[in-house]
Amino acid sequence: MDVTVMNESVGVIGLGSMGAPIAANLIAAGIIPTVWNRTATKADALRQKKAKVVSSPAEAAPRGGLVITMLADDTAVEGVVVGRDGIAASLGPNGVHISMSTIAPSTARRLAEYHSEYGGIYVAAPVFGRPDNAAQRQLVICTSGPAGAKARIRRILDAVGRAVFDFGEDPGAANVAKLCGNFMIGAAMEAMAEAFAMAEKSGLERTQVADMFTKTLFASPVYQIYGSAIAAKKHSPPGFTLPLGLKDIELVLKTSGEVRSPMPLAGLLRDRLISGLAKGRDEMDWSALALGVLDEAGLK
Amino acid sequence: MDVTVMNESVGVIGLGSMGAPIAANLIAAGIIPTVWNRTATKADALRQKKAKVVSSPAEAAPRGGLVITMLADDTAVEGVVVGRDGIAASLGPNGVHISMSTIAPSTARRLAEYHSEYGGIYVAAPVFGRPDNAAQRQLVICTSGPAGAKARIRRILDAVGRAVFDFGEDPGAANVAKLCGNFMIGAAMEAMAEAFAMAEKSGLERTQVADMFTKTLFASPVYQIYGSAIAAKKHSPPGFTLPLGLKDIELVLKTSGEVRSPMPLAGLLRDRLISGLAKGRDEMDWSALALGVLDEAGLK
Amino acid sequence: MDVTVMNESVGVIGLGSMGAPIAANLIAAGIIPTVWNRTATKADALRQKKAKVVSSPAEAAPRGGLVITMLADDTAVEGVVVGRDGIAASLGPNGVHISMSTIAPSTARRLAEYHSEYGGIYVAAPVFGRPDNAAQRQLVICTSGPAGAKARIRRILDAVGRAVFDFGEDPGAANVAKLCGNFMIGAAMEAMAEAFAMAEKSGLERTQVADMFTKTLFASPVYQIYGSAIAAKKHSPPGFTLPLGLKDIELVLKTSGEVRSPMPLAGLLRDRLISGLAKGRDEMDWSALALGVLDEAGLK
Amino acid sequence: MDVTVMNESVGVIGLGSMGAPIAANLIAAGIIPTVWNRTATKADALRQKKAKVVSSPAEAAPRGGLVITMLADDTAVEGVVVGRDGIAASLGPNGVHISMSTIAPSTARRLAEYHSEYGGIYVAAPVFGRPDNAAQRQLVICTSGPAGAKARIRRILDAVGRAVFDFGEDPGAANVAKLCGNFMIGAAMEAMAEAFAMAEKSGLERTQVADMFTKTLFASPVYQIYGSAIAAKKHSPPGFTLPLGLKDIELVLKTSGEVRSPMPLAGLLRDRLISGLAKGRDEMDWSALALGVLDEAGLK
Repeated sequence: MDVTVMNESVGVIGLGSMGAPIAANLIAAGIIPTVWNRTATKADALRQKKAKVVSSPAEAAPRGGLVITMLADDTAVEGVVVGRDGIAASLGPNGVHISMSTIAPSTARRLAEYHSEYGGIYVAAPVFGRPDNAAQRQLVICTSGPAGAKARIRRILDAVGRAVFDFGEDPGAANVAKLCGNFMIGAAMEAMAEAFAMAEKSGLERTQVADMFTKTLFASPVYQIYGSAIAAKKHSPPGFTLPLGLKDIELVLKTSGEVRSPMPLAGLLRDRLISGLAKGRDEMDWSALALGVLDEAGLK
Repeated sequence: MDVTVMNESVGVIGLGSMGAPIAANLIAAGIIPTVWNRTATKADALRQKKAKVVSSPAEAAPRGGLVITMLADDTAVEGVVVGRDGIAASLGPNGVHISMSTIAPSTARRLAEYHSEYGGIYVAAPVFGRPDNAAQRQLVICTSGPAGAKARIRRILDAVGRAVFDFGEDPGAANVAKLCGNFMIGAAMEAMAEAFAMAEKSGLERTQVADMFTKTLFASPVYQIYGSAIAAKKHSPPGFTLPLGLKDIELVLKTSGEVRSPMPLAGLLRDRLISGLAKGRDEMDWSALALGVLDEAGLK
Repeated sequence: MDVTVMNESVGVIGLGSMGAPIAANLIAAGIIPTVWNRTATKADALRQKKAKVVSSPAEAAPRGGLVITMLADDTAVEGVVVGRDGIAASLGPNGVHISMSTIAPSTARRLAEYHSEYGGIYVAAPVFGRPDNAAQRQLVICTSGPAGAKARIRRILDAVGRAVFDFGEDPGAANVAKLCGNFMIGAAMEAMAEAFAMAEKSGLERTQVADMFTKTLFASPVYQIYGSAIAAKKHSPPGFTLPLGLKDIELVLKTSGEVRSPMPLAGLLRDRLISGLAKGRDEMDWSALALGVLDEAGLK
Repeated sequence: MDVTVMNESVGVIGLGSMGAPIAANLIAAGIIPTVWNRTATKADALRQKKAKVVSSPAEAAPRGGLVITMLADDTAVEGVVVGRDGIAASLGPNGVHISMSTIAPSTARRLAEYHSEYGGIYVAAPVFGRPDNAAQRQLVICTSGPAGAKARIRRILDAVGRAVFDFGEDPGAANVAKLCGNFMIGAAMEAMAEAFAMAEKSGLERTQVADMFTKTLFASPVYQIYGSAIAAKKHSPPGFTLPLGLKDIELVLKTSGEVRSPMPLAGLLRDRLISGLAKGRDEMDWSALALGVLDEAGLK
C-alpha cells in the first residue's frame, strides 16, 4: 500500500493553523503536495519545502488523485467543491476528497453525493487536536466513507495523525463523532467552571481542586489542558477561538435537531458562548466560556 | 510518626459497602479497630479478623483516640456525633473524628464546632472510589482540618487509600472538593449520554464512539468506567445507587446556594435523577440518569 | 384613505388555514382579491365568493399594487418573491408586499432589499392568532417597514385583524416582536406544564389549579386557551402543530444567536419540541410539549 | 354564619407588610383582633385602631378560637406553633390556626399533625398579592384543610381577600397551589426578560414590545405589573424582595424533589436569583432576576 500512495498526486487546500502543519508533515513523510490557500502568502513556507503552490483550488485537485481540504466552515468547503471550477469537477473519476474540516454531517452527505456525480469519492476525515498537536503529528482522526478509498488514503492519514478511528461508510458519520467530541469538551469545561467557582466561593484554591482531579479521576488530556486554563482564568492566546467554538456547538445543535435527539447541555454551552461574544470575548479561547460562570457568581 | 499511630486506639463506625473494606484494610495494615454498625451482623466478617465489635457508637470512639465514620448521610453522621451518648462526648479532649462520609460542608463545619466543645477535633476526609476501589486500597482521599490532627492520622489514611489531597484548615473544605468531584462525574455522564444518543440516532454505533473517546481525549477512569456503562445501556448492578447520586447533587445545589454560585448543570443533573426516581429506577446505578436522555430521544 | 384602498389591486398568496380566512375577510370588507395557492383546490371556496383565482404567484402580484403572502416558512416566502417569475419583479415600482408569515427577521431584511431593487416595498405584518381568530377577524398584527406604505395598507390590515402594533421602519422588527410572542407562549406552556405536574403529583386536581390561575393572576387569552388544554392533557386536534412550533422556536434561537442575546428558556423549549417529535407527536398541537413534562415526572 | 364569627376571638401573629393590613381589614370588618409581633412597635398603628396588643404569640391564640399567622418562613411559623409556649398548646381543642405564610407543603402537613395532638385544627390559607393588594382587600386566597373549619373561618377570609380557591382537605395542598403560582410568576418574568433582551438587541423599543403583549395575548395582572418593571429595568423599591423570591423557588424545588416531578424552569429561576444575590441585588424586587438576562446579553 505504501507504494501505491507514493505514486499518488496529493493536494492540500487550506493552509491555516491546521492545514499548514498537515502539509508540512506530508512533506516530512516524503509526500510532496500541491497546495493552495486563499491568502497566497501563507504558502511561502511550504514552497521553500518544495511544495508546489498553485493559484486555484482546482489546480490542487489532481485528476484521479487525492486532495485534502482543511477550511474554516461548511460554506468554505462547499465553495471549493461545487461548480465548474470546483474540485469535484477537477478530481473527476476515482479522485478522492479527504475532507478534514469540522462540518455538519448533512453537509458531508451532500458533498459526497456531489462528488459521485463526477465519479469521485468523498472521505470524511475530521480531526481532534490543536495546531501544536497538528505540528507534532498527534492528531486523532475520525473517518467515514467507502472502504476502498479509506484504505487508499491510509498512509496519508498516518503521515499527519497518531490514530485513526473509523465509523463506517456513511460520509456524515465521522463528523457526527467529531461533533460529539467537541460537545464533550465544551461540557467538560462547563463542569469544571461551575465546580471551580463553587470551590472558590467556598474558600478553596481553585488550582488545587483542578490539580487533584486532573491527576486522578479526570487524568486525561482534555481535563488537563482546559482544567489548568480554567483554574487559572487564562484564556489567551487562543488555541481555538470562542467564535469557532460557537460554530461547532451550533453544528451540534443543528444535528441534534435533524436526528431529533434533545441536548440540553449543548443548549447551555450555546448560551455561554453567545454571552461570551456579547461581552466582547471574540478573541479569546473558547474555554473563556468559563468566564461566564465567574460573572454569574459575582467573582473577579 | 508510624510509632505514634500504632499506639492509637482506632474505631470505625459504619460497616457498609465502603466502611467494611476500610476497616479490613486497617487490619491488614496492623491496626486493629473497634467497630460498630447499626445492623450488627455486618460486623461478623471483621470480628473473625480480630476486630473488636461493640454495641454503641460511643464505645467505638476511644477517649483521646481516633474514630472513623463512614455513614449514609448528614443525618446519620450528626446522629452518632451529637448528644450525651454521642462520639464527641466519648472521644473527649484530643480525640479525632475522621469523617469520611460525603456530607454538606456546612454540616462538617457545625460538627467541627460541636467536637471542639468537648476538646475534640474534626477532620473531614471524604473519599472518591467505589466499594471495589475501597477493597483494593485505591481510594482517593480529600482532607481538611487542623494540621496537627491531619499529621497524626496520616498513617490511617495511607492504610486505606492511594492518595491524599489536602484543602487546608476549614473543616468544610474537603467536602466542597468531594462535592465538586461527584458533580463533575455526573456532568461527564450527562455529556456522554447526550453525545451517544445523538450518535446512535445518526446511525453510529454508540460503543465505537465511547471507545474512541475513552482511548484518547477522555482517557481517564471516570470516562472509561461510566462511558462503557452508558454506551452499553447497562446500569445494574449498582456501584452507587441513583438515590445516593441524587443526595449528593442535592448537597451540591445546597452548597452552591449557600455560597451564591449558580450551577445550571447541577440543576440539569438533579432533574435527570428525580426523573429516574419518578420512573422507578431507584435500584439502578446513578449512571442510569443516562436513560433519561434515551427516553427523551425516543430511543429503546 | 379608504377611497385609496378601494382602488388598490390586492393579491393573496397562500390559502392555508390562515390565508383563506384572511382572503375571505377582505372580500367581506369589499376588497376582492386575486388569489393563488400551490394546491389549486384550496381556492375553490374563494372563487365562489368572487375572488379571482390565478395560476402563478406573479399573477397575484399586481404591478404597483398590493400582495399579501401567508406561507409556511422562510423558504416558501423567498420562493415566491425571488427570481424572474417572482412577485418582486411582478409588483415592480410602488408595489407593496405585505408579508404575514412568521419568518426570520434576517430573511425579512433580505427580502426588503430584494424588493427595493425593483422599486417595490416590503412591509412585515406577521400576525398573532389561530385559524378561528383569523376567521373572526381577531388577529393581532405587528408591522414594520416604510411609514408611507404602512399607511397605504392600513385598511387592508383593519379588514383582517382587530389591532395593529407598529415597530418602526426596520423590516425585520415586526418579526422580532412576533418571535418574542411565540417564545413567550411556549414559555407559558412550559411553566404551566411543570406547575400542573408538581400539583398533580402532590395530589391536587390539575384542572382546579389551572382554573384558579386563569381566573386571577394569569387571566389572559394565552393562559386560558393553553392552560385548559394542558390541564386536560388534550392536544388534538392541533391549532398550530408541534413541527410549526419548533420551526418558530428555531427562528427565535437563530435570531438570539445573531444578536448575541442568550435565551436559555428558548433552548429548553427547543428540546421539549424535539423530544415531542422523537416520540411521534408530529400531528399534535404544539402545546403537546407539556406531555414531555408528564413523561419526565412518570405521569400517565 | 356571620353571627358565629362575630363571637369568635381572633388573633393575628406577624404584623409585617402583609400581616398589618390584614389585621387592619379585620378591624374594618368589625372583627377586633388580638395581635402580636416580634418587633412590638409595629403594633402601634393597630393599637390605635383598638386592636389588643399582647406580648407573646400564645396570648394571641385564644383557647378554642382562631389565630392567623403571617410570618417570614417555615422556621418562623414552626417557631410560634411548637412547644409549651406555642400556639398549638394555647389554642387547644377546636382552635383553628389560619396559616397564611408561604411555606413548604410538607411543613404544613407536619404542623397540622402537631395541632391535632392538642385537638386543634390547621387550615392552610396562603395568599397571592403584594402589600398594596393586601391593603385594598384584594388578596387571592388558597385554602386547604378540614371542611368544617374552612366554613367557620370563611368570613375572616372574606374580610381580607377578594376570592378564595379551595384545594380540599390535605393541609399541604393550598401551599402547593401557592408555590405553583410563585413559580409561574417567576417563569413569566424570565420569559419577558429574555424576549425583551432579544428585542432590544434587535433594535426594538422594549417598552413597545411589553405594551403590545400586556394589552393583548398576556393582558393579565402578572404580566402587566412585572412586564412594565422589566421593560423599564426598574426593580426598586421592592414589592417582594429577591431573597424572598429565592426562598419560595427553593420551596418549589424542594417540593418537586419530594414528589419526584422535575422542574427545569424552576432550576433556571433558582440560578438567576442566586446570581442576583451574588451580584448584591438583595434589596431589589425579585423581578431583578431580569437583570441577569441583561448581564448575559451584554446590555447596560
